[in-house]
Amino acid sequence: MHIVYKSEATRGAHWQRWLAEHAPDVQMHIWPDIGDATQVELLIAWQPPEDVMATFPNLKALLSVGAGADQFDLGQLPPELPVVRMIEPGLTQGMVEYVTFAVLGLHRDMPRYFQQQRAAQWQTHPIRTAHQRRVGVMGLGELGQASLRQLVSLGFDCAGWSRTPRELNGVRCWHGAEQLGDFLAHSEILVCLLPLTDSTRGMLNAELFAQLPTGAALVQVGRGPQLNADDLLTALNGGQLSAAVIDVTDPEPLPVEHPFWQHPAIWLTPHIASQTQTDSAVAALLDNLRRYQRGEPMVGVIDRNRGY
Amino acid sequence: MHIVYKSEATRGAHWQRWLAEHAPDVQMHIWPDIGDATQVELLIAWQPPEDVMATFPNLKALLSVGAGADQFDLGQLPPELPVVRMIEPGLTQGMVEYVTFAVLGLHRDMPRYFQQQRAAQWQTHPIRTAHQRRVGVMGLGELGQASLRQLVSLGFDCAGWSRTPRELNGVRCWHGAEQLGDFLAHSEILVCLLPLTDSTRGMLNAELFAQLPTGAALVQVGRGPQLNADDLLTALNGGQLSAAVIDVTDPEPLPVEHPFWQHPAIWLTPHIASQTQTDSAVAALLDNLRRYQRGEPMVGVIDRNRGY
Repeated sequence: MHIVYKSEATRGAHWQRWLAEHAPDVQMHIWPDIGDATQVELLIAWQPPEDVMATFPNLKALLSVGAGADQFDLGQLPPELPVVRMIEPGLTQGMVEYVTFAVLGLHRDMPRYFQQQRAAQWQTHPIRTAHQRRVGVMGLGELGQASLRQLVSLGFDCAGWSRTPRELNGVRCWHGAEQLGDFLAHSEILVCLLPLTDSTRGMLNAELFAQLPTGAALVQVGRGPQLNADDLLTALNGGQLSAAVIDVTDPEPLPVEHPFWQHPAIWLTPHIASQTQTDSAVAALLDNLRRYQRGEPMVGVIDRNRGY
Repeated sequence: MHIVYKSEATRGAHWQRWLAEHAPDVQMHIWPDIGDATQVELLIAWQPPEDVMATFPNLKALLSVGAGADQFDLGQLPPELPVVRMIEPGLTQGMVEYVTFAVLGLHRDMPRYFQQQRAAQWQTHPIRTAHQRRVGVMGLGELGQASLRQLVSLGFDCAGWSRTPRELNGVRCWHGAEQLGDFLAHSEILVCLLPLTDSTRGMLNAELFAQLPTGAALVQVGRGPQLNADDLLTALNGGQLSAAVIDVTDPEPLPVEHPFWQHPAIWLTPHIASQTQTDSAVAALLDNLRRYQRGEPMVGVIDRNRGY
């Protein structure tokens, strides 16, 4: 079987060597070397070439190297072509670590203590323990569920919200537009792990922030275009929100003059919450290749109607 | 039974009301109101009065309101007087939260990313997952064990070191002076949760730092006098250590001109990792009062020879 990889080169070389050893029947070409294009059945990419079906006339599926497929222009892809997100344990682990770090930091007032440090101020503030802190996670897929498991184990009072109903151990779950308000009113720390779709674009805005408890905090690990930057700054400066940890922006990289960089109540990281891990991802990739060969559905096929 | 409380006033008033409701036979006086001093059997204090036995001639035990008893001058106390540390779930929970936050922050290079933020630099660095990160905790009492349980659940490769042998699930344990070097060589992130004793005073020094892997990081949540500040600065500036999270200092508060405040690789917090929680601590206190009344040993009695 012939497949093509089109993404970061170091990882590609590693995957090529690994597959040569563990799956010698799979021939992985690294873009721009595509071999005989008519033989290519699968493309693994961050960004596919412009006219993917003209390049690979017999393509059977497009696989993302990342957790999302929102970087693909789905309108440009044949509707029947399966599009597959990357679900692999390394990616999940990275997100759990980042979300746990961010929620604990906000819970324990760390943005305030770090500002005090720069001012050489030794001043303590009252502590609440995790079971007195209400955390809400929007988006209850693989990453949201794994993050909630860790937050529950730390003792936080956890809630979740998703488009369709979910049941998670130790987590109060809400769903759908009509229950969003109840969920937000509960969330002193709001974690956004939603996929980017037409309905989540711009969703983190003034109207949403106003429904959170006064002084709430935000962890944005979804996608940059979900957040209205002006509305966030207004909410922070007016006290409706107390702090925000932001890992995804619009655009990326964020321009140096953007006010997020120097805002004292914002922790900004350059989209590092979670990265596909070379070793664990290639094993997940091979598992999907074997499913494909057996004619089974691959793990992570997106629903083209909802976009994730 | 008559007891006296000598510490922070708001908590004292709360405990007094709570005991009046839940244990009406216990009469808690709040310093300087001590009632009939000859009737006082127990003193709960952060700092006892200078000549405690002259003040309370029939005192049967001294209870600390905090996790440590190192603030007591043990040499000034009758050798047969039991001295009791506070062990209560709120104190443990706070420490678990802080240690987990600090270890995750160091593991994920956050001091570096926060420096980049101030410089408006969008630059990513390779990720390792928790199972590839070796964390070592020194001090395996109540707080060390609870912290390790959480770190193990996050997937870290965990080790522990203590004065005497311990066995902990999922943790490689070393003990004693002769095994300290092996433990340190393992610890890419070193967490100090040791009590302050003659043998731990000044222990976090150049000689110890030199035994850590190059680029290791430190979480200091023990006691201020354990750390040699000059040696830490030398290790950070020379690259032997990459970063440090410090919650306890010598003295406290730390003077405004101290170099820790503005050091880019140091996160400094004002001794807030863990505080005795009013509600959970008074329940733990009452449990100890009942043990005392039944003639049983109280929870947290220190060994006067080792000092903790």
